[in-house]
Amino acid sequence: MKKLLNDPGNAVTDSLAGFALAHADLVQVHHAPVYVVRRDGAITGKVGLVSGGGSGHEPLHAGFVGDGMLDAAVPGAVFTSPTPDQILPAIQAADGGAGVLVIVKNYTGDVLNFETAVELAETDDIDVSSILVNDDVAVEDSLYTAGRRGVAGTVCVEKIAGAAAARGADLGAVTQVAGKVVANVRSMGVALTACTVPHVGKPSFDLEENEIEIGIGIHGEPGRHRVPMASADEITKMLLDPVADDLPLVRGDRVLLFVNGMGGTPLSELYVVYGRARRLLEERGVTVSRSLVGSYVTSLEMQGASVTVLRLDDELEALWDAPVHTAAMRW
Amino acid sequence: MKKLLNDPGNAVTDSLAGFALAHADLVQVHHAPVYVVRRDGAITGKVGLVSGGGSGHEPLHAGFVGDGMLDAAVPGAVFTSPTPDQILPAIQAADGGAGVLVIVKNYTGDVLNFETAVELAETDDIDVSSILVNDDVAVEDSLYTAGRRGVAGTVCVEKIAGAAAARGADLGAVTQVAGKVVANVRSMGVALTACTVPHVGKPSFDLEENEIEIGIGIHGEPGRHRVPMASADEITKMLLDPVADDLPLVRGDRVLLFVNGMGGTPLSELYVVYGRARRLLEERGVTVSRSLVGSYVTSLEMQGASVTVLRLDDELEALWDAPVHTAAMRW
Repeated sequence: MKKLLNDPGNAVTDSLAGFALAHADLVQVHHAPVYVVRRDGAITGKVGLVSGGGSGHEPLHAGFVGDGMLDAAVPGAVFTSPTPDQILPAIQAADGGAGVLVIVKNYTGDVLNFETAVELAETDDIDVSSILVNDDVAVEDSLYTAGRRGVAGTVCVEKIAGAAAARGADLGAVTQVAGKVVANVRSMGVALTACTVPHVGKPSFDLEENEIEIGIGIHGEPGRHRVPMASADEITKMLLDPVADDLPLVRGDRVLLFVNGMGGTPLSELYVVYGRARRLLEERGVTVSRSLVGSYVTSLEMQGASVTVLRLDDELEALWDAPVHTAAMRW
Repeated sequence: MKKLLNDPGNAVTDSLAGFALAHADLVQVHHAPVYVVRRDGAITGKVGLVSGGGSGHEPLHAGFVGDGMLDAAVPGAVFTSPTPDQILPAIQAADGGAGVLVIVKNYTGDVLNFETAVELAETDDIDVSSILVNDDVAVEDSLYTAGRRGVAGTVCVEKIAGAAAARGADLGAVTQVAGKVVANVRSMGVALTACTVPHVGKPSFDLEENEIEIGIGIHGEPGRHRVPMASADEITKMLLDPVADDLPLVRGDRVLLFVNGMGGTPLSELYVVYGRARRLLEERGVTVSRSLVGSYVTSLEMQGASVTVLRLDDELEALWDAPVHTAAMRW
């Protein structure tokens, strides 16, 4: 295993220590228990936003803490849910008196641990609502998941709910718009290679030299099928069609098209996928009015990509365009 | 070879087509010959900035076209210099009547082809100056290079010269500040794995399972030495010390610390390197006042990183902080 790490058992805390130093203008990192919070803590009167999950998907979630997006993020060990004793203080730190929305990707461990933390926060008289992200159309149930998995669409939920909170929407309204994003966002991914969890030291699964996995999860969970290596155009169609059919998109829709890298894929290849996905959408009579291309929800050094489509309306488009200032997303 | 590509011979043009669609608000991509220019072309009265070089280093350079940075970028084939017939129209397209600065990474092919294009532009009555970036301290001469190679420090030159041009500095002043960056920036990189050029189809070099290359070039050119795999702390010291000694940094200096990913390295690992590099600088009595962490000058899917240090003063710091709006850098 070749990685830029020291003790693999400290991979997450070593990385967060560097993250805290590099972005001291934006965040504070708390240790024991570990969570990341805005530099100046909660904003009085603003709904707080908290998300989290296993590490190994950077920049998700800590990279999205800052103005216009998350108030706190809770990183677990690599590919492992954070614990309620981490999540609770993050909720407390994000609470400015207007309540807190927790954004949870649909994995059994995350769901259980966030639920426990939310119950504890409520006994602490914090008004908390939660939203479950389950945008991955690849499989209905999966390793670690009852129902669909939450993947790259989470970025859209965090950005848009964050913008609503920054504009002063109350907890009900922020939760409602987060739900609207979840209802209108779908994703599907492909792996060309596996990734290696640092404290495990060997690849999470095996792929043959000429084989790829369509519908891969962000922890390397099995997808829909393994197929022989194909062209970018063919692979993109295998991802985009199920996403578009599931929404379902209809002629005249306008969308955000988000091509996400899994961590080890060059940016140049993501733009090849983007170009093909866009043409496929246009052939369906769908207008791409917003775009995002980059590695935002990763699986360590996995090579591969996912395609996310968010159906937009004026409200979602305006919230997407609203200013954001975080380590990994800024405009 | 597993890559998200169609015909490997069209890797660059397919990617640029997607890039043009995703960033139509910022850029236009011209074909035959290929170059990338700001959406609205040259700005009358502003010094134009042009850079370019072989593809495979994305987001360099096309990702830096936009307000406050480059006016045009010229991508060659993968790891291959662009030709004078591409560079000349890019210079012409960037000329708003106040002259053009061309920023050239020090590789023999780039130097020759940019020189030819500059001579042609001058016969076209465009006032052109050029600056050579040679920040890589690893080796003095190299495959493809007489003298030191230009690597990730190029981002600093493009950002700071771009800010000076945006503020209305004349060609002499923009060239001078670009030269000041070159004089104060140094880099060194490491490869954990090789990368594969699409139209070649096999890795550019071989590294053993437990071996890394210190001082690697961004095309996989040989570095200083191959050593056994080591910890992130040890590797970072092997990169940071030669950079700091070469500048040389002295107690009381303040710097920009830029940890760059080679394309296939997770962001989380770059923060581990950042944290260690920062501590090493602080032990030298050097203050890190600005930071950049991410994959900005890549080598396709190579795993590895480079450490760049730019010694700052008030002028360079203010120009670094100035607004920028490009596909890959925005604040």
